[in-house]
Amino acid sequence: MDKYCFAADIGGTTIKMGLFSPAGDIVDKWEIPTKKEDGGSHILEDIADAVKGEMAARNLTADQILGIGVGAPGPVDKDGVIHRAVNLGWDVLNISEKLGALTGMKVMAGNDANVAALGEMWKGGGEGFKDLVVVTLGTGVGGGVIIDGKIVTGCMGAGGEIGHIHVEDDEEDSCGCGNKGCLEQYASATGVVRLAKKKLKTSDKDSVLRTQEVNAKTVFDAVKASDPLAMEIAEEFGEYLGKGLAVIASVTNPEVFVIGGGVSKAGTVIIDYVEKYYKKYVFHASRDAKFKLATLGNDAGIYGAARLLYQ
Amino acid sequence: MDKYCFAADIGGTTIKMGLFSPAGDIVDKWEIPTKKEDGGSHILEDIADAVKGEMAARNLTADQILGIGVGAPGPVDKDGVIHRAVNLGWDVLNISEKLGALTGMKVMAGNDANVAALGEMWKGGGEGFKDLVVVTLGTGVGGGVIIDGKIVTGCMGAGGEIGHIHVEDDEEDSCGCGNKGCLEQYASATGVVRLAKKKLKTSDKDSVLRTQEVNAKTVFDAVKASDPLAMEIAEEFGEYLGKGLAVIASVTNPEVFVIGGGVSKAGTVIIDYVEKYYKKYVFHASRDAKFKLATLGNDAGIYGAARLLYQ
Repeated sequence: MDKYCFAADIGGTTIKMGLFSPAGDIVDKWEIPTKKEDGGSHILEDIADAVKGEMAARNLTADQILGIGVGAPGPVDKDGVIHRAVNLGWDVLNISEKLGALTGMKVMAGNDANVAALGEMWKGGGEGFKDLVVVTLGTGVGGGVIIDGKIVTGCMGAGGEIGHIHVEDDEEDSCGCGNKGCLEQYASATGVVRLAKKKLKTSDKDSVLRTQEVNAKTVFDAVKASDPLAMEIAEEFGEYLGKGLAVIASVTNPEVFVIGGGVSKAGTVIIDYVEKYYKKYVFHASRDAKFKLATLGNDAGIYGAARLLYQ
Repeated sequence: MDKYCFAADIGGTTIKMGLFSPAGDIVDKWEIPTKKEDGGSHILEDIADAVKGEMAARNLTADQILGIGVGAPGPVDKDGVIHRAVNLGWDVLNISEKLGALTGMKVMAGNDANVAALGEMWKGGGEGFKDLVVVTLGTGVGGGVIIDGKIVTGCMGAGGEIGHIHVEDDEEDSCGCGNKGCLEQYASATGVVRLAKKKLKTSDKDSVLRTQEVNAKTVFDAVKASDPLAMEIAEEFGEYLGKGLAVIASVTNPEVFVIGGGVSKAGTVIIDYVEKYYKKYVFHASRDAKFKLATLGNDAGIYGAARLLYQ
């Protein structure tokens, strides 16, 4: 770790860029727009330009740079090939090879959720652990499974797709993936809203949620204010997520679960509900897994992308 | 791989022993009884004696031996420490250290199901693959999750405890582990009998199973003879197991599932039922995982134990 390192976390609207020092500290971070036109063919060029611009501005030479780490929104295999990123207009694309050719640098790439998980392990809520699962409760439910410090990529880059763990046999609505009863349908921000709307219909209980916009934040704010109906919603949320994480524990037996994403901004109240049901469903040998909140927020991706190079 | 290697697979009644050549071929295999008296304190001594006896009989010297691989029926951590093996009377015991002291050899130990999985990867149904899940359908449901050629041990040695994945919310009977709705309650040999007995009670259909002993073999023999009631049982079995394996795929995205254990002796008919429901529940990126039958039978454990040393 004696060289600088660039990081790029490619999202649907912006690319988060970062420069990391030889000590692994963040030196600079900035954003550039994600140009989706022409099948996303300018995206890697823009990253290459951003890297070169930053090097010129800081008088950095090529031999001072370890390489570029990239997080991208789709399944990325061990060779840095992404297999379709619908959000970017990409089909099969070898990120490592193409960005490497544009910059002359070593490029390592991974799935954005997996890379963010690595960031949380390196400098976030999972610091100090090597066997962990990072769960991102955002618009969807993403995640990263890390074993002995390394991301579980899977043979098709679909390791850690924990939002699509089946947790409900009786679901009638379809998940975005086409299946029914996926964890994402209950534990994502939109999932919490679904649970809330259903509960508001089927229950007679009074609630502050009847008089305000229903979203993950208002639901958990109401939970903190001891709103009985909101607390019922939180129980359902906790049962689905706890059940899903218990299943993961039967597969990889992690030391810690790190919970991040927009929904987790509600704080430790989330963990209280999840851990209760985790303990109900989990095999006894995994009962003592720890639960922590993610700490890096939107920067987890660039931290993890840099970490791809440093590991 | 230029030395011989011993393997011991410790079961509740016998210890299977093996000697492997420098080329990784099995040279000899034999069994010794598992002495459970005195808290199982003679078990490792007996293995040490067996190793020394075989070396003397074959004129092998210590410098020709790579070491001893051991599979044991309980959670074994990365240091070779077993944390309770109820069947053997063992509490916490450092197998590597104790057997190492008794023999002066390098000892590597792992959980028996995980070690058997490694054997199937090395020389069995999973040969040629590095990302796989081995599922053992015996009295219970055990397994081993292998990523990039290495067993997922987990922080407490409870990786691959796939028999305790929760697959049924409405179960009233308890699993041996204390939870309700574990995969093992439906997909093990005893699980198949449970499903069959329930079906025989609730259905009016005629069936050969009404006139003979009901066990996993007779159920799947009836399936092969197109017995309609047995086929309904097989559908239920397949749905539970397929659902459980789909969940694993969302975590590790393996290339192949290798199905072994007593129930799998029924052959490819098992795979037909499981794969059908696997495809129903699995996330699309893992849809094309392969399904294969285990081929090493009861020898998987000694193969895998030897492999612990060779890897």
